[in-house]
Amino acid sequence: MTFALVMADPLSSTLGLLALLWLAAKLGGELAIRMKIPAVAGELAMGLTLAALHRQFIAFPDVTLNAAADLLANLGIVVLMFAVGLESTVAQMLKSGAASLRVAFIGVAAPMALGLGGAILMLPKGTPFSVDLFIGACLCATSIGISAQVLREKGAANTTEGRVIMGAAVMDDILGLLVLVLVSGLVSASNGGGPPWGSLARTFALALGFLVVAMTLGRWVTPHLFHLANRLRGEQILLPMSLGFAFLLAYLGNLAGLASIVGAYAAGLILEPAHVRVLEERELHSLEDLVHPLVSVLAPLFFVLMGARVDVGALCQPRTLLLALLLAVLGVLGKWIAGYGGGKNLHPSIIGWGMVPRGEVGLIFVAAGAQLMLNGSPLLSPQIQAAIVGAILLTTLAGPIGLARALRSLKTREAVRGGDQGF
Amino acid sequence: MTFALVMADPLSSTLGLLALLWLAAKLGGELAIRMKIPAVAGELAMGLTLAALHRQFIAFPDVTLNAAADLLANLGIVVLMFAVGLESTVAQMLKSGAASLRVAFIGVAAPMALGLGGAILMLPKGTPFSVDLFIGACLCATSIGISAQVLREKGAANTTEGRVIMGAAVMDDILGLLVLVLVSGLVSASNGGGPPWGSLARTFALALGFLVVAMTLGRWVTPHLFHLANRLRGEQILLPMSLGFAFLLAYLGNLAGLASIVGAYAAGLILEPAHVRVLEERELHSLEDLVHPLVSVLAPLFFVLMGARVDVGALCQPRTLLLALLLAVLGVLGKWIAGYGGGKNLHPSIIGWGMVPRGEVGLIFVAAGAQLMLNGSPLLSPQIQAAIVGAILLTTLAGPIGLARALRSLKTREAVRGGDQGF
Repeated sequence: MTFALVMADPLSSTLGLLALLWLAAKLGGELAIRMKIPAVAGELAMGLTLAALHRQFIAFPDVTLNAAADLLANLGIVVLMFAVGLESTVAQMLKSGAASLRVAFIGVAAPMALGLGGAILMLPKGTPFSVDLFIGACLCATSIGISAQVLREKGAANTTEGRVIMGAAVMDDILGLLVLVLVSGLVSASNGGGPPWGSLARTFALALGFLVVAMTLGRWVTPHLFHLANRLRGEQILLPMSLGFAFLLAYLGNLAGLASIVGAYAAGLILEPAHVRVLEERELHSLEDLVHPLVSVLAPLFFVLMGARVDVGALCQPRTLLLALLLAVLGVLGKWIAGYGGGKNLHPSIIGWGMVPRGEVGLIFVAAGAQLMLNGSPLLSPQIQAAIVGAILLTTLAGPIGLARALRSLKTREAVRGGDQGF
Repeated sequence: MTFALVMADPLSSTLGLLALLWLAAKLGGELAIRMKIPAVAGELAMGLTLAALHRQFIAFPDVTLNAAADLLANLGIVVLMFAVGLESTVAQMLKSGAASLRVAFIGVAAPMALGLGGAILMLPKGTPFSVDLFIGACLCATSIGISAQVLREKGAANTTEGRVIMGAAVMDDILGLLVLVLVSGLVSASNGGGPPWGSLARTFALALGFLVVAMTLGRWVTPHLFHLANRLRGEQILLPMSLGFAFLLAYLGNLAGLASIVGAYAAGLILEPAHVRVLEERELHSLEDLVHPLVSVLAPLFFVLMGARVDVGALCQPRTLLLALLLAVLGVLGKWIAGYGGGKNLHPSIIGWGMVPRGEVGLIFVAAGAQLMLNGSPLLSPQIQAAIVGAILLTTLAGPIGLARALRSLKTREAVRGGDQGF
């Protein structure tokens, strides 16, 4: 029938799926809260459950296949990072810059060394060194979205520890990129090409250059930009313009090789309350009040889908599971050590746990490794891939739980001491 | 380079495009406001301009080709309809149900008869009757999104006239579906098949049945549903749950043959302030406050993209333009007549203008017609298609301007008389 062809709305199945994902996210969050772990861990676990349901019952939809849900989830994490950036300023960020840099460097070096050692120890003799190296590289990733969500939930995004974590994660994005270029380059060098120093230097200069320009030039241009926006007479200017600004920086940052979320976070840092005050007063809502509903709707989609992407089945072999467990422990340990890089008066356990989740960044590393060939065969065997993914999953679930505990125990101690360090 | 392959974010170009679309929407809205016409007309016109820029400068992106922007635009209109539905209740809607029904019926019959007459008059002798009939059918469509936006902007969504317009638009969705089935069926009947009475009856029963069930059963189930949601201890429950409810109804309505926006509107009607009061108090925000930012970000995308889909170039032939103008005038006239169906004490010009925009619903009709074949050749020639699209465009631009004027002149008259009829 012609009318069915015309009126059947391609949007409709997406709408149904979104309703399902929101319900799943909220139920997962609820279960987590009743078990006294952060809601985001429950959302991840619920994603795992949805994926397992799909594998059991073929009629159950594969939630990871819907391009629309995927888009909204990715937008969600970009908007979340913008919202977290809004809670701090560039000046505050720079103040904790040295601490962030230390945390980021140790947070890459320590897990990499530990992962490399663990792999050499656990894997059978004769495994190429590149494989051990790549396993180490996967452990150095940091997925900041989850920690950002926990920090926001607990009202700790605008503490020094919160800023050190966020700053270290931004730098980690550059460092991780460099590690990936380096390791991939070394693998292809062992295939015949030379070491990739040139592309390494270019990558570093471009990414760092973008951040420096955004933080200096951006801070100078932004007030003028929003001064122009103030002169618009229309309604509902503030949110579209601010979000447009964040998305533009995410786009430009991506051109420089940075992940979209880093650009969005930088936009949040650059945009200061003074720039938007006139529009906030006219529209009777603060920018944060306007961004918050977007985050509350989109971010849960990201966490559920991240959980749903993990193939639990591939982890069932005991040897694989053992390797995954070991790598996860080493991965947590490595970031814990990094937590001490924050310096005096800061709480290493908070910073360390904040850096623990590997999430989608770790998965991107694995995906990159899956494409690498060594002497004509794939670098990573399916078992090793499954073990790395398992370790990433474990750190991703453990991270928010550990961070929430660390924040809570600090709060309790400070309440006893009558301290006022901001939590 | 491997890293470029991995880190190049497919989301990035979408983020850049969204920033561009928001800037375009706000600039278009600004120009419109300065010309004292509604912002939404400016957004439509800006969409036209973007499409024209793409045709002139091939380097300029074709904004209609981005699937992500398209998705967000469509979600925007669904959320907008939900927001408008929230402003009224089922009881209020039923009170003006008879008036809506009269307006909807006249609003389909009058433009159809006028369009049919105009087509017979203007088109060369020997044109098949099916073509005239189809032109008439295209003029009976109503695109409610634009009027909904104007009614909201002017604070008139919760007036009797506003509700009559919205109710008539919902019924129009059913009537339009029937007209489409009927006309398509008649064309295929003239190709050999029988008249489509069976599928006509089924379509009608299904669509009407959904609305009746949603309005009765839904009203009974919803309080229990949100009572359960009240017991969730997590944060940020209200918006994801309410939106999930709206999207679920949109999905179910679509299964029954209704457009997604009708289901979302019904969800807004069913959801009453009493159901969400507990959650609103806990989250310190009203549901309307939470939905509003989503609308402000997503709806402009819909209007800009709707404008961008029109091919102005195809309208340039004088004969086509003349036919388009005549059809537009007849289209406006037909809906004006429908405005008088509202009954005593209501303002026919407000209701009539509210029904004028054909928008995307009219374009869906044209798309359906473009697929129809008569004796082996397409039913609609490119010129006739361009003329219908031109007429739809003109009504879509004229509708919001006329509605805003009608609302303003009423306000002025009532201020003079000291009336208090709610505007």
